[in-house]
Amino acid sequence: MFPIIKVGLLGLGTVGQGTYRILTGNKDNLTQKVGAEIKVTRILVRDLAKDRGMELDPALLTKDYRDILEDPEIEIVVELIGGLEPALNYVLSALERGKSVVTANKDLLALHGKELFEAAAAGKADLLFEGSVAGGIPIIRPLKQCLAANQIKEVMGIINGTTNYILTKMSYQGVDFTNALLEAQELGYAERDPTADIEGLDAARKIAILASIAFNTRVLINDVYVEGITRITARDINYARELNYAVKLLGMAKETPEGVEVRVHPALIPQSHPLAAVNGVFNAIFIRGDAAGDTMFYGQGAGALPTGSAVVADIMDAARHRLYKVPGIIKCTCYAQKPIKPIGEVECKYYLRLIVDDRPGVLASIAYAFGDKKVSLASVIQKLNLDQQAEIVLVTHRVKEQNFRAALNLISQLSAVKEVCNFIRVEGEET
Amino acid sequence: MFPIIKVGLLGLGTVGQGTYRILTGNKDNLTQKVGAEIKVTRILVRDLAKDRGMELDPALLTKDYRDILEDPEIEIVVELIGGLEPALNYVLSALERGKSVVTANKDLLALHGKELFEAAAAGKADLLFEGSVAGGIPIIRPLKQCLAANQIKEVMGIINGTTNYILTKMSYQGVDFTNALLEAQELGYAERDPTADIEGLDAARKIAILASIAFNTRVLINDVYVEGITRITARDINYARELNYAVKLLGMAKETPEGVEVRVHPALIPQSHPLAAVNGVFNAIFIRGDAAGDTMFYGQGAGALPTGSAVVADIMDAARHRLYKVPGIIKCTCYAQKPIKPIGEVECKYYLRLIVDDRPGVLASIAYAFGDKKVSLASVIQKLNLDQQAEIVLVTHRVKEQNFRAALNLISQLSAVKEVCNFIRVEGEET
Repeated sequence: MFPIIKVGLLGLGTVGQGTYRILTGNKDNLTQKVGAEIKVTRILVRDLAKDRGMELDPALLTKDYRDILEDPEIEIVVELIGGLEPALNYVLSALERGKSVVTANKDLLALHGKELFEAAAAGKADLLFEGSVAGGIPIIRPLKQCLAANQIKEVMGIINGTTNYILTKMSYQGVDFTNALLEAQELGYAERDPTADIEGLDAARKIAILASIAFNTRVLINDVYVEGITRITARDINYARELNYAVKLLGMAKETPEGVEVRVHPALIPQSHPLAAVNGVFNAIFIRGDAAGDTMFYGQGAGALPTGSAVVADIMDAARHRLYKVPGIIKCTCYAQKPIKPIGEVECKYYLRLIVDDRPGVLASIAYAFGDKKVSLASVIQKLNLDQQAEIVLVTHRVKEQNFRAALNLISQLSAVKEVCNFIRVEGEET
Repeated sequence: MFPIIKVGLLGLGTVGQGTYRILTGNKDNLTQKVGAEIKVTRILVRDLAKDRGMELDPALLTKDYRDILEDPEIEIVVELIGGLEPALNYVLSALERGKSVVTANKDLLALHGKELFEAAAAGKADLLFEGSVAGGIPIIRPLKQCLAANQIKEVMGIINGTTNYILTKMSYQGVDFTNALLEAQELGYAERDPTADIEGLDAARKIAILASIAFNTRVLINDVYVEGITRITARDINYARELNYAVKLLGMAKETPEGVEVRVHPALIPQSHPLAAVNGVFNAIFIRGDAAGDTMFYGQGAGALPTGSAVVADIMDAARHRLYKVPGIIKCTCYAQKPIKPIGEVECKYYLRLIVDDRPGVLASIAYAFGDKKVSLASVIQKLNLDQQAEIVLVTHRVKEQNFRAALNLISQLSAVKEVCNFIRVEGEET
């Protein structure tokens, strides 16, 4: 006979249902692997009567969170409500009572990580959150344990499936942004209000979490420089391809002598980069360590079962730690305090697309403006349009963002420059 | 002040040196993360005087294994000698004494896994082996913990860098096998005696280890069906490309109702498969789970620092478990006993290349032989050669290996068939 570890679920939405299905459907294997039976004894829901299309003992359901948080037999609380409140309150309360907490809530972690880990340490409890970043892809534990011997140099991830689906559609089918978004919404890959995804806010939360672990310093959502993908056009993607790049929304974090860079924005990456082949709703995280070198973790970044897979893995670890009476054995690793590097100080290559008058001397005046701000050019494509205008696509060498911006400011004031259509950072090349 | 956990290294070859460099070079971070200082107090070497080109207190070195195994203060033994004996003896002896063992020795694990895990259980000690498969890529812990909630359906890996380097050279530069091997040897990617790599034996050990974890049943090296890459020609690779496939040496393991399939052989995989883009000495392991769906883990499969990264991660976990007095918390998970499916029962698609007389009726007679053995054809390419001969390339639909072999036997006896040049299994397509 195996001992029983009792679990309470807060929330029974998509991920909650996936989690419950895995816990019940694969029960015998989980019991063998953990050495204890993981038993869900209570589930907090908003509507007791709702038909969830799954087999479920109605006696498990409750509308009162105290039935879980105040039940001394429940050792593990699984928070799958999402958002800040009441999730934060519940999680803090569970940790303070010494219950281990498993959560897939990226908002909580990215905004309240410090408070949460302090509560976990005080309660001598586990706080596990594999499901909060990149769904079914193992990334938190690999970064925190498997790559723990490394000084991480760089984390670069496609960590939002909605935007990757949209960019893939635009890249391979020439669809424009609006139609690609509509299609993503029809397929359920984008929400009715897609702001958090397409403006990069969802990815920003995830990269804040990953950067905190990678660099052992607390990175908050407000530390992340964020740009979404709404400015990206099929035209930019085509030029990128001509230049042998793919366009992806990246969450990036790098450690530099001047501080930690952490940002989310669209980027051109070389077609030969392992991330360039990550298409559709798939996610992948590329990590460069001083010892392991380059590694990449690929898989499904969302969905009931993929995220449920991560949540249940955490529940299994939490249960094992309970069984051995060592909850809290894996602690917060933000023991350092590193400055965040301002975006102006970040060095990149830049792709820039302009519409200019097609007359002699225009390219020279643009090149002069770049030179004035110490920006040198790596390549230039010029295409003729109608009406005596030309479209110019430039790629710079590596330069500080503030210099590029200053040059861009000069260029936009040139009378021959009709439109600064777009600029996109270039990443993933060896420097 | 942090407590000290003492470690003894057995062996100071490539991986031993990498391990020692990481432990000393990144010491402060490791101490913070573990909550204890990991201190190497003794290193077993064969030659005390050898110049290893690294800073090293000569007092650490010993030629007597008892200085490590019989030192009661050493809690963790790191076996990096490789091969079976004396490594096996040392590891068993350490485990029996209750010392935790970290090893990167795939031979030991693939041949003596059961014995080793029994000794670990008896000694209440950790037996960790992240470095034994795919070097710097986190794969053992991800499979054993992060994906533990899943019933794994399939593991498919490029787990030998030497052969992947050779096949990449052949694919992209049209080099033939012999020259690609020579180049790999010159670059140090292949050993002077390359047999273990090119005949698939190295990959077989690794897939045996991965299959044991994935399917919770003991898979031994002798259970693995093995073919190497020596039969692969640049010609086959070119035809494969025409058909939109890449050629890779795969370690494969699948769970089927009739038992576990486990094999190493070259295979055609679709160019769109994530493994197809894994080139050069890089390794990657693709895992399909019932909950997580498809995941892939990519990185450097060998080398002092990548493998050292995996070894040190294990040392950190072993040290943490020592600190919390829970060594052995992660146990052997081979709790099931599943049959191995014989290769004749395995179902695949097959690529086949033949030289035949170029006269009417020949293709019909080949198609007839296939039909007689219930093999149906998916595609046929016919190219004319000199001397009234034709080269035919066929791809079958999915069929049992024994049927394909029987058809091949019939075909090879046809008078019009001059040569059966090669056949290669096709993998990685949705079925």
